[in-house]
Amino acid sequence: MPISGFPEWLPSQRMIEQFVLDRIRSTFELYGFAPLETRAVEPLETLLSKGETSKEVYLLRRLQDSGEAPLKDEDQLGLHFDLTVPFARFVVENHGKLQFPFRRYQIQKVWRGERPQEGRYREFLQADIDVINRDALPFHFDTEIPLVIGDVFRSLPVPAATILVNNRKVCEGFYRGLGLSDTAQVLRTVDKLDKIGPAKVAAALVETVGATDAQAEACLRLAEISATDGSFADRVTALGVTDPMLEEGLSELVQVVEAANEHAPGLVRAELKIARGLDYYTGTVYETQLEGYERFGSICSGGRYETLASVGNTRFPGVGISIGVSRMLGLLFGQNALTVSRSVPTCVVVALPNEEKRPECDRIAAALRKRGIPTEVAPAAAKFGKQIQFADRRGIPYVWFPGDPDTVKDIRSGAQIEASAESWTPPAEDLKPAIS
Amino acid sequence: MPISGFPEWLPSQRMIEQFVLDRIRSTFELYGFAPLETRAVEPLETLLSKGETSKEVYLLRRLQDSGEAPLKDEDQLGLHFDLTVPFARFVVENHGKLQFPFRRYQIQKVWRGERPQEGRYREFLQADIDVINRDALPFHFDTEIPLVIGDVFRSLPVPAATILVNNRKVCEGFYRGLGLSDTAQVLRTVDKLDKIGPAKVAAALVETVGATDAQAEACLRLAEISATDGSFADRVTALGVTDPMLEEGLSELVQVVEAANEHAPGLVRAELKIARGLDYYTGTVYETQLEGYERFGSICSGGRYETLASVGNTRFPGVGISIGVSRMLGLLFGQNALTVSRSVPTCVVVALPNEEKRPECDRIAAALRKRGIPTEVAPAAAKFGKQIQFADRRGIPYVWFPGDPDTVKDIRSGAQIEASAESWTPPAEDLKPAIS
Repeated sequence: MPISGFPEWLPSQRMIEQFVLDRIRSTFELYGFAPLETRAVEPLETLLSKGETSKEVYLLRRLQDSGEAPLKDEDQLGLHFDLTVPFARFVVENHGKLQFPFRRYQIQKVWRGERPQEGRYREFLQADIDVINRDALPFHFDTEIPLVIGDVFRSLPVPAATILVNNRKVCEGFYRGLGLSDTAQVLRTVDKLDKIGPAKVAAALVETVGATDAQAEACLRLAEISATDGSFADRVTALGVTDPMLEEGLSELVQVVEAANEHAPGLVRAELKIARGLDYYTGTVYETQLEGYERFGSICSGGRYETLASVGNTRFPGVGISIGVSRMLGLLFGQNALTVSRSVPTCVVVALPNEEKRPECDRIAAALRKRGIPTEVAPAAAKFGKQIQFADRRGIPYVWFPGDPDTVKDIRSGAQIEASAESWTPPAEDLKPAIS
Repeated sequence: MPISGFPEWLPSQRMIEQFVLDRIRSTFELYGFAPLETRAVEPLETLLSKGETSKEVYLLRRLQDSGEAPLKDEDQLGLHFDLTVPFARFVVENHGKLQFPFRRYQIQKVWRGERPQEGRYREFLQADIDVINRDALPFHFDTEIPLVIGDVFRSLPVPAATILVNNRKVCEGFYRGLGLSDTAQVLRTVDKLDKIGPAKVAAALVETVGATDAQAEACLRLAEISATDGSFADRVTALGVTDPMLEEGLSELVQVVEAANEHAPGLVRAELKIARGLDYYTGTVYETQLEGYERFGSICSGGRYETLASVGNTRFPGVGISIGVSRMLGLLFGQNALTVSRSVPTCVVVALPNEEKRPECDRIAAALRKRGIPTEVAPAAAKFGKQIQFADRRGIPYVWFPGDPDTVKDIRSGAQIEASAESWTPPAEDLKPAIS
């Protein structure tokens, strides 16, 4: 039976997913990101070191251990809940064998033991890129991440993507400049804006961080600011708050927006209410919306982290982003927004006149495969009408009839021509299943 | 820290693994196998339904459940330990939505909570193909599986593969014809031949199934038979045992060997001692050895199963095989038998004369990427010697120098030529990392 939160696609949907994954990977590689795959498990202490997410972890237990005393924390293994924490652990463990700055992509399942709800899964596929450096990571990598993601989404058969960008330094500097010292709590409270609305956020700021009404109002004014160019900086400055961290954050955020505008106008929007719930981001943060799917929230998020990985006194700061592949496909499949022209990779079915001819049909299939044409021989020597139906039900475009000479029939048009398995080639658009 | 039994490859090794996976997938698709990915977890009762392997299962537990009473068996989830059991469950669950015969491939991690030992992992990658049909599955699919696997291994940069084939009906029919009724126990005992030797197998047969010395000797004589053509059938017949199931098994096994000999001489060898420990095989069984790595055992195994999946009175028999990708690569990496020409996908590094020129360098990189050439811009405006070193350390073959005109340097030969980012193309063999 299906298990809530553990989605499974049918083969035709999996073909669409593979098409999407191939495009993602290909774009990541064009930008020089190297592939990495980490083990599915981490020690519990590694998983908990990030805080906040402890209750989402699935722990492992060997069946024959049941009844024994529970293991100590440091001996317990849990499934990873994202790919950033394992990546940081991998870098720390292998820093002597890696070349820095180290650019890697990682496309893997992750698991979260949350209560499943619409569009949220317990097992899902993520596609991440990160750049990590030793000691300090130049800021231009923060401007590159949205360009990669912009190229990824333009290569996919999905609605237009907008990357929403903010910078933690802008918010923290602004709150500090306002005179609010518990900036993390302010950030978490403002992050609830879309859920609970401005009045409740203002009340919560007054209550939890001791903000005055004017301070709470200023926090809300900052969160309202949004622009597709560098003009947001003037609007922030017009709020009259000054702070060195605020200035630094504004300068960084302008760089991200302007680099994106040069590469792909309209791709990026500065959106000063974006915060990202997780603790480890320290500067730039990214979220991504698909046109028409804004209400479902971000399908690609990330940011800059200065302190996630360190070895002794050496820090390994990084910046990265994660495409929620299962989440995105789940939304698009739910709207029937993606289709594939056939349910199998097969391009040609070789019809079988009788079982004695199977070796001959196998030779024809082998000759077609040798030239890269996916081919099956019919499973049984049924009437040709039934063999054509076998192809038709799967969306396979061609049926091959052995004879003297052989012929091949496009079962969509009915056109049938003489052909040799040594030389016939289907039109390029028929070779692989078409995704639209 | 590394966790015993959970291997992780470095990025250059992961590039080799991806190359291998791409070739495997491509061959599977040429034969018309459709992709499938199942969830990582199954209910414990599904995992235990196959028997024998119960102690290898990893169970999941949510962290916040700790301290609560253990769940009932039917509510417990465990990580899958192979891809055949989840596939059979998927077919039963979705049989109304699938077209039969259903050919699928599945490339995923599996987990086994065994004690790790050399060449055995607790987390590893498998690449499976199976064909399942409703009611009955024609035997010719058993002859096709080795052809697919033969094509896979010929496409890989690995030593020559030999597929060892046997048929459970040969063994069971032979044992029954000999007068031994507990054929399953005989099979399990003979399966230990390579581990404990013929004398101990004979003694065990006398002890556990009550065989006479002559019966035990006949079992050993059968297990000695091995041939790369159909001649093995005469040698079995010469042992003087007759049984209808034995005849059926011999006929099937001859078909597998002869079909393989026509397609790829030397690929398949009938090896009558092959049994496969797992319970569910009912006819053909396959194992695979790589030349020079025979002592490490099979790296690709499978067989025919008649009764793994059923819905009410409808059975879904199948035949399939599983390539142990992690196991194979672990062996080859251990012998340094596979290398890759660079540690990143990048083909060109665009040198950065100074930080002000970064936008211009980004434009050059974008133009190269647009034509499919993996490109990075240098991370910092260091001296050109250091930027060349950046490329050299990663095995990146080309460095691009912006100028008037631009030039590109092959840092292996030192040859430097004028080039335009709109038209220059590297030799095809340099575009992607080369595996050897």
